Amino acid sequence: MSAKAITDLSQLCIHTITTKPWNIEEAVKRFSQAGVKGITVWRDALEKRNVQDTGGMIRDHGMDIVSLCRGGFFCGTTRESRRAAIDDNRRAIDEARELGTNLVVLVCGADPNQSLEDSRNQIQDGIASLVPHAESANVRLAIEPLHPMYADTRSAINTLRQANDMASAIGSRYVGVAVDVYHLWWDPELQSEITRCGMNNHLFAFHICDWKVPTVDLLLDRGIMGEGCIPVKKIRGWVEGAGFAGYNEVEIFSTTHWKSDQGEFLSRIIDAYKNNS
Amino acid sequence: MSAKAITDLSQLCIHTITTKPWNIEEAVKRFSQAGVKGITVWRDALEKRNVQDTGGMIRDHGMDIVSLCRGGFFCGTTRESRRAAIDDNRRAIDEARELGTNLVVLVCGADPNQSLEDSRNQIQDGIASLVPHAESANVRLAIEPLHPMYADTRSAINTLRQANDMASAIGSRYVGVAVDVYHLWWDPELQSEITRCGMNNHLFAFHICDWKVPTVDLLLDRGIMGEGCIPVKKIRGWVEGAGFAGYNEVEIFSTTHWKSDQGEFLSRIIDAYKNNS
Repeated sequence: MSAKAITDLSQLCIHTITTKPWNIEEAVKRFSQAGVKGITVWRDALEKRNVQDTGGMIRDHGMDIVSLCRGGFFCGTTRESRRAAIDDNRRAIDEARELGTNLVVLVCGADPNQSLEDSRNQIQDGIASLVPHAESANVRLAIEPLHPMYADTRSAINTLRQANDMASAIGSRYVGVAVDVYHLWWDPELQSEITRCGMNNHLFAFHICDWKVPTVDLLLDRGIMGEGCIPVKKIRGWVEGAGFAGYNEVEIFSTTHWKSDQGEFLSRIIDAYKNNS
Repeated sequence: MSAKAITDLSQLCIHTITTKPWNIEEAVKRFSQAGVKGITVWRDALEKRNVQDTGGMIRDHGMDIVSLCRGGFFCGTTRESRRAAIDDNRRAIDEARELGTNLVVLVCGADPNQSLEDSRNQIQDGIASLVPHAESANVRLAIEPLHPMYADTRSAINTLRQANDMASAIGSRYVGVAVDVYHLWWDPELQSEITRCGMNNHLFAFHICDWKVPTVDLLLDRGIMGEGCIPVKKIRGWVEGAGFAGYNEVEIFSTTHWKSDQGEFLSRIIDAYKNNS
């Protein structure tokens, strides 16, 4: 199934981190002026703010709050650190409810001082333990598989197959996955696993950007769609074919783009969204 | 199956690129003095040298030539570039025979201007077309899956499952795989796919080093075994359990280590081989 043509910005969401130099008030003003309909809020953008008021401010600008980024980081070699992580995830769920979004994205964590298998077990235990709180808050949790280059400290979940397996094992309709093209574009099983998570009704989020050639930094060198080699439109077709009808979320971390004029950067994102996504 | 204890250097091989500041004559002298029994020769180390004479020089020092690195890079958007790549791989096979090794390691290539699927088809076609030449030269070809962070330009083969599938599809006893812990340590299927390639009798090579935490460069920041988070000994146990009895090849690219005294670096490698591999 090929992707639907993009004719307007009604399914465009941008993450606050994408235009990091702007605070959340500035980002909401500029995004909404440009016609962007969705925003995903990173927790750092909420610092020193009343969360409910900030949610109201965003809705007053006519925008949907697609998700809160991010919970997770469940791994650790001590019981105390793992318990603290779960407590922090409960707070993230509470923040999401106060903000007025029903989704928290999980960067699951990894600890280089233990095996990946131990980290994966801790992740699954951590998410499972959050399900009752997530249900009572009516906030869903999306497992985001991260690129294998982050398996040391950020996530021991590195393929969509793993995320799908874990969501199925937990077996709650409040637990699903987030598909990010940056992390998953290389995977030969990507299409079949996208189809699978659609069939399981747990495809909760879709993140887009591009992989620059060359990429010069492991974390902060993401590109705008069309700047690199990811077939964003093809993958969007797979995601839509799997039944996903939510927002296309632009999530870019880039020292280079953050140094540029953020208004021009926003224009480039919107142009690339229409033409290269 | 747990790894056998390492009691001597009889299965230690070092790649010429590991001590890049040394030319091949210096490397062979220093490796053999230290008791290292195997060497893998990178093609750049043979520049401006008679290949047969260099092979003789290595054997005169009592060392085995484990493999020639590297062939591959089969992908390209034009028929001419792909044909040139195949010609270059024929030359690599000839060089291996002249040098006196029966193995060429393949970094298969990728082209960001075409789909990964197209690149994979070109890789399989390229390797298959080399089989008659490889057979007549009695030189085997090892498909080395590369870390997904190299899927843009270096290899569209990024998991051991893919390499195993391709080796099986080609179906020649001259085509197998090389397992490098740096590229594959994160993969949840690593153990089962190592077992599979052992059962298929096509596990041709085993490369070791470590993934530093943090890793600050996508290419040139590999660590000595024990410097990072890869469970090298556990993976070696899987490889030996699959029937592999060849060399453990130390392949490190590191700006940091290349800047250090190479004699001390070699001592550290040998110590890490005995204690952390």
